[in-house]
Amino acid sequence: MALNVVRCAFEGRTRWGVLEKDQVALVPGEFATTGDFVTAMPVSRLSGLDGPRVPRSAITVLSPVTRNQRFVCQGANYRQHMIESGVDPDVKNFNMIFTKAPSCIVPADSDVVRPRRVRFLDYEVELGLVLRRDITGPETFTESNLLGVLAGLVIVNDYSARDIQIPEGQFHKGKSFRTFGPVGPHLCLLEPQDLPRLRALELELRVDGQVRQRDSTRNLVYGPAETLTELSSVQDLSAGDLLATGTPAGCALAVPSPLKQRLGALLPERKKWELFFAQQARRPYLQPGQLVEATIRSGDGAIDLGLQRNRVVQEA
Amino acid sequence: MALNVVRCAFEGRTRWGVLEKDQVALVPGEFATTGDFVTAMPVSRLSGLDGPRVPRSAITVLSPVTRNQRFVCQGANYRQHMIESGVDPDVKNFNMIFTKAPSCIVPADSDVVRPRRVRFLDYEVELGLVLRRDITGPETFTESNLLGVLAGLVIVNDYSARDIQIPEGQFHKGKSFRTFGPVGPHLCLLEPQDLPRLRALELELRVDGQVRQRDSTRNLVYGPAETLTELSSVQDLSAGDLLATGTPAGCALAVPSPLKQRLGALLPERKKWELFFAQQARRPYLQPGQLVEATIRSGDGAIDLGLQRNRVVQEA
Repeated sequence: MALNVVRCAFEGRTRWGVLEKDQVALVPGEFATTGDFVTAMPVSRLSGLDGPRVPRSAITVLSPVTRNQRFVCQGANYRQHMIESGVDPDVKNFNMIFTKAPSCIVPADSDVVRPRRVRFLDYEVELGLVLRRDITGPETFTESNLLGVLAGLVIVNDYSARDIQIPEGQFHKGKSFRTFGPVGPHLCLLEPQDLPRLRALELELRVDGQVRQRDSTRNLVYGPAETLTELSSVQDLSAGDLLATGTPAGCALAVPSPLKQRLGALLPERKKWELFFAQQARRPYLQPGQLVEATIRSGDGAIDLGLQRNRVVQEA
Repeated sequence: MALNVVRCAFEGRTRWGVLEKDQVALVPGEFATTGDFVTAMPVSRLSGLDGPRVPRSAITVLSPVTRNQRFVCQGANYRQHMIESGVDPDVKNFNMIFTKAPSCIVPADSDVVRPRRVRFLDYEVELGLVLRRDITGPETFTESNLLGVLAGLVIVNDYSARDIQIPEGQFHKGKSFRTFGPVGPHLCLLEPQDLPRLRALELELRVDGQVRQRDSTRNLVYGPAETLTELSSVQDLSAGDLLATGTPAGCALAVPSPLKQRLGALLPERKKWELFFAQQARRPYLQPGQLVEATIRSGDGAIDLGLQRNRVVQEA
């Protein structure tokens, strides 16, 4: 059974703890980064931990991924989300990779701040993978060796300013505003028997109680093993780094179909974006005061990544 | 007069040194990262350094930017390069931001490795800015306070696999392969009297002695102060982080004009990319064995960022 760990503030210090039914078993020692923690504390050292327990109410949950880590993301990795994003899933034959600035990482229950310049703030619930060890050269990962490199799972909400991300083309800026990356609440450390559930996790996102996104990781186009294999052939990654695997359908974003885009491309650039913004203005983008809730779990409950709750607030 | 510093290997250790005419003045102490060095060693402490000198031949120059730092890039930031990249400079009204993986950083005189899967390897000489201090919230930078945040300048070559970058749309992967980011050879630390030269630096890139790129930083569309102002409103940056400011015209890349792209958009996606690749095959992309040389300096020689020499080699 997977083990859930939290990074938390307790009595003025940053600690790590193992979640038990009503309490938290504090892990001895302090670990400055997620990489330090997962490197020093494999599941074998964390299960059956001796030592002090504290009530859950005594801790403040922090993000289980620290801001020193990389925040790499996959784009358009669920078929239906590709379609709503204006991508033809029968033509896209590559694993789209971009980054978010790690300074956007906040604890799971943080407010998400809509910047003054942003009108179209959107949500994206995603399964996040946290690495167990460094990758410094090309490697081939498969189901059978994946847990050698994958420590565990987190919920990520890849908040996105669509009015920056889409017209500017490169995703980094519109997805990197501070508070745009709630992570957690906890990190679920995987054991071999959990692996079959990795592709059977149910993602759900609600806005003010209304379900907007609901899908299963079985519909991921590029899975964790093949994605990490390709990334390893390009760049280094470190223990504790975060890979967000893309979001399912149901975002507020609506991009015209590839056919309509082709016709739209005949318009002058300014006119094209006028029409795009007019279309978005009719979509249910997030408004100040709304509550976004996100969950990821397996049907049998053996893996449960918890609940994120973000209140949307307007930048002052 | 600007001060040139190198990070180098000397007698089995990583050291920093100030470049003098024929020798290097070793800086006392060791600094693990560029951030540590620029924080601990302002120009005032480095000029007139006492202590041992060693001949230049005794050191091996390393990248003055370490791989722990962020590597943020501006895209399409010179008017003529926008046109060759298929962007209409009269319509693009935003500062395009993307990232390279810092693991692509190598010393200035490294081989650049063309990966097996890459056919269209391109060069991009760029002025790199190295930050003096952390940025953790919105700030307004102008000429008058820029040196409070900008430590100095380096040459960057933003090598790019066009056959990945362009069809995949997001730039991170195609620009992040290991060796795709030579930085240096030295870091030129700026003093107030150097500031007017920041927008009067001549960039030049040659392939086998033939000039391919030649332009001046006076033609930068978004300058350092306004770019750092916008970035500060989005994300955190740290002392020692690297911002590459975009490349001038003259790359091998040739993207059809916006008008032709509009007509091309009417084609089926696969056909469109077939035509794109056929066009690129006629362009002078880098081939194994070729030598790429890049320089950046002011006309009066007061700022001289040195010479990068990269031999193109094929991945084994």
